[in-house]
Amino acid sequence: MKNAVGRDIPKELLVNGREVYHGKNYMDGKYLQKVAPRTRRYEKPMESKVVSSIVQALKDCGAKSGMTFSFHHHLRDGDFVVNMVMKAAIEELGLENLTIAATSLGNAHDPIADYIEQGRVVGIQTSGIRGRIGEVVSAGKLKTPAIIRSHGGRPRAIEAGDVHIDIAFVAAPTSDCTGNCRGIGGKSNCGSMGYAMTDVKYADHVVVITDCLVDFPNMPASVEAIDVDAVVVVDSIGNPKKIASAAARVSQNPRDLMMAENVARVIASTPYFKEGFSFQTGVGGPSLDANLFLEKYMDERNIKMGWAIGGICRPMVDLLKKGKVGKVIDVQDFDLDAVNSINQTPGHYEMSASQYANPANKGAFVNKLDFVVLAALEIDTSFNVNVLTGSDGVLRGAPGGHPDTAAGAKCCIIVTPLVRGRMATICEEVVTVTTPGECVDVVVTDYGIAVNPNRPDLLEALQKTKLPLKTIEQLKEEAYAIVGRPDPLPFKDRVVAIMEARDGTILDVVRQIDTPV
Amino acid sequence: MKNAVGRDIPKELLVNGREVYHGKNYMDGKYLQKVAPRTRRYEKPMESKVVSSIVQALKDCGAKSGMTFSFHHHLRDGDFVVNMVMKAAIEELGLENLTIAATSLGNAHDPIADYIEQGRVVGIQTSGIRGRIGEVVSAGKLKTPAIIRSHGGRPRAIEAGDVHIDIAFVAAPTSDCTGNCRGIGGKSNCGSMGYAMTDVKYADHVVVITDCLVDFPNMPASVEAIDVDAVVVVDSIGNPKKIASAAARVSQNPRDLMMAENVARVIASTPYFKEGFSFQTGVGGPSLDANLFLEKYMDERNIKMGWAIGGICRPMVDLLKKGKVGKVIDVQDFDLDAVNSINQTPGHYEMSASQYANPANKGAFVNKLDFVVLAALEIDTSFNVNVLTGSDGVLRGAPGGHPDTAAGAKCCIIVTPLVRGRMATICEEVVTVTTPGECVDVVVTDYGIAVNPNRPDLLEALQKTKLPLKTIEQLKEEAYAIVGRPDPLPFKDRVVAIMEARDGTILDVVRQIDTPV
Repeated sequence: MKNAVGRDIPKELLVNGREVYHGKNYMDGKYLQKVAPRTRRYEKPMESKVVSSIVQALKDCGAKSGMTFSFHHHLRDGDFVVNMVMKAAIEELGLENLTIAATSLGNAHDPIADYIEQGRVVGIQTSGIRGRIGEVVSAGKLKTPAIIRSHGGRPRAIEAGDVHIDIAFVAAPTSDCTGNCRGIGGKSNCGSMGYAMTDVKYADHVVVITDCLVDFPNMPASVEAIDVDAVVVVDSIGNPKKIASAAARVSQNPRDLMMAENVARVIASTPYFKEGFSFQTGVGGPSLDANLFLEKYMDERNIKMGWAIGGICRPMVDLLKKGKVGKVIDVQDFDLDAVNSINQTPGHYEMSASQYANPANKGAFVNKLDFVVLAALEIDTSFNVNVLTGSDGVLRGAPGGHPDTAAGAKCCIIVTPLVRGRMATICEEVVTVTTPGECVDVVVTDYGIAVNPNRPDLLEALQKTKLPLKTIEQLKEEAYAIVGRPDPLPFKDRVVAIMEARDGTILDVVRQIDTPV
Repeated sequence: MKNAVGRDIPKELLVNGREVYHGKNYMDGKYLQKVAPRTRRYEKPMESKVVSSIVQALKDCGAKSGMTFSFHHHLRDGDFVVNMVMKAAIEELGLENLTIAATSLGNAHDPIADYIEQGRVVGIQTSGIRGRIGEVVSAGKLKTPAIIRSHGGRPRAIEAGDVHIDIAFVAAPTSDCTGNCRGIGGKSNCGSMGYAMTDVKYADHVVVITDCLVDFPNMPASVEAIDVDAVVVVDSIGNPKKIASAAARVSQNPRDLMMAENVARVIASTPYFKEGFSFQTGVGGPSLDANLFLEKYMDERNIKMGWAIGGICRPMVDLLKKGKVGKVIDVQDFDLDAVNSINQTPGHYEMSASQYANPANKGAFVNKLDFVVLAALEIDTSFNVNVLTGSDGVLRGAPGGHPDTAAGAKCCIIVTPLVRGRMATICEEVVTVTTPGECVDVVVTDYGIAVNPNRPDLLEALQKTKLPLKTIEQLKEEAYAIVGRPDPLPFKDRVVAIMEARDGTILDVVRQIDTPV
């Protein structure tokens, strides 16, 4: 059955009320009966919830085969916790048929690919899927299709009961003996713990894993003791060097800088660029660089940014400290400057994934965004974006907050070079639709700027500037002229991953591909 | 059927799985299937949720007869919101058969008594019940028995589905246009909004009523926009003079000061009085004064308090500012010093009612308390406490956090004069049991100190001091010798209120009484 972005969704996936994608506001105004966990009452005072090992915590929480374990990805490529827990569950307790519901998975989790190949892990629900996990899933080794969700789609799915978390594991830079957790004050700091917040409120059991036990009460707590069953103290929850990188450096690449400047010029040419505007940007090259040029235009017009959200890194913290942005609200920190600023710099606050981006609550922050600047692996002539599958068709990306911010923002700008290596970034049809074209407003490339025809207002505003406007078809033809049209990818029939739209409908599917693993 | 505190509970109340009180840790370890609300999805970005009037908000939220409306009591005797909402619902929309589920009700809500007499309000669920509401309920005018819960029992009941909130109303000192609320920054500040936090997460609809609309985003938010359907701006949500009083003054009454000093001596004589101890005290006369004497003993022993919780007022804020307590965690503020300190003074944090005292979550703050000092209207020779019904049998009190802190604390001290006017405070049998005797450890009166026989350890510790120890029976006899034995109260058969234990079982009932209304 064809959905609203023209993708054919196999009928057999449309069970249990699941629908194909109907458009970005299809669910607006509909009511949602939320679900709730079954939790243990801790009525009798106990001094401490610290237990001796992950195995003990698993036993205490009734871990058994067939369960779903959840994880959050604030420790990013430095995370040790997913692997430690799955090793204990599978190799020490012998559990089988497990599902991992993580806010994201990356190269740090390559060992999980073995458990997939062994058939011990049979389900993956995540935003990011990279490295060996992406390869084995793309090769058809996972028993059930992986479910890929945006950062806003995940709390929606949890609250709707689409995924029931049996045990949530919290990687905590600091915890007290009852499970009040914070992302700072320890040796493996991550700052915001926003992605863990929904998990712990909806999981039956919650286990905190920390490498820094601190005095009770560890306040203000990102994860509250009232939701925690057990605390395990380990030597190390992660590699600090890979958790929070040193500050991202501004690109010296003239092409990137040119694109970044054009992004800022696009922003400054719209009616939304006024005192108190709101903003989110990504952390990759040109989208990060856009911060700098934006500051120049803010100074020229003598306006300030009202607030910024997102994954946060140094440039935004600098703007906050300079008084050029009023408030920064933060679901994840990408560098040490951000980690050391959250809840410390006045105006720098933490938020949950639901507050950030959930399309089924009563109004997430993304709904009030003026601008978002995002990257893309591919974007097609319908403005559909792919940030999930590589040019070889293999899973190696993450929708993250991309579909959420694009849907919410008044002006969604994608910035990307026209070609990358031998691959056309602007193409006829993306391999996988991860953000629907109706949510994308402007595409900035190094060969010109295209405006989505469904935004004549923005086109009119940009036509008053000297920005190099082209149609998306022109850009695609120029890309193909440079690198040629891509050959069709050798997909098989089997669906290996479902790309869920943020509202829970099916946006696209990813099929098995022959690939050297 | 007799319960564990010897009260006869009518069988007809024991329906829908309701049980009589079995003892303070009866529910420990049992599992709870929580419930969840049915909420509207706000997927499509909207700039503002501000609507023109309370009536409009009621209509937008589908208000109809038979519904349950919830309120929180941070505006205390200054609150205008309960009356405004109920007037709109009943007089403008003509709704009937309404239930009010409030965290507390007081003299400010006398007009509600008329709606009870008219049969428009048919149910009351609250902690505090005073003034005309208490009188008409005691006179049998409410159609269904009022349900009286502790501050911890309320979030338990909400999470368990014992009460389903159709619309929660939030009295917000400040809100932005999407409903992010804070208790400070406006003209009717209340500080902590902890009692509202559980309500808004479990109500189907949430309406914010504010008299100070501020810029988006109003952070850090006590009530989050993701839970709010509508915002109504009114001229005034309350009378600031009655919301937060000027700082409570230390008593000059030598009897009160003597009792307060004895409370501090009791505390200092127990093994729990050591570096990092935890503490909660009430705001009434001697329990408040105990702070001062306690500080003296802390200085003498050169120890500091680790943390304090509760309703907070100036003496605790002063200790925090002097560095004599590490952290203050706050569910309600009683004076302007506390209001102006929360989230401002380092170490002064806000918590929800569930974090504070819920016996069915995974460990509330009360479970880690070393000491709590509480008042009482009456206490009997089984150490049962009454803080709900007056000597005339009329509802005029509030269990509040009394049963929760008493159950959680390692040492619960009740401080009260032996007699008040013509009434014996220490008596043979309290009119209503609101805190079970098994939770009370020491009673300090102006005529001597009694230790609960189930705490031989504390008795032994206190016997090493010069404190004037007596048995509770001795104190009762001395009280009766002064004021005589009370006559039995003229109760009728009809149950007008159910005193729920914090775990949801029935601790006691209050029956109709002939009283001039």
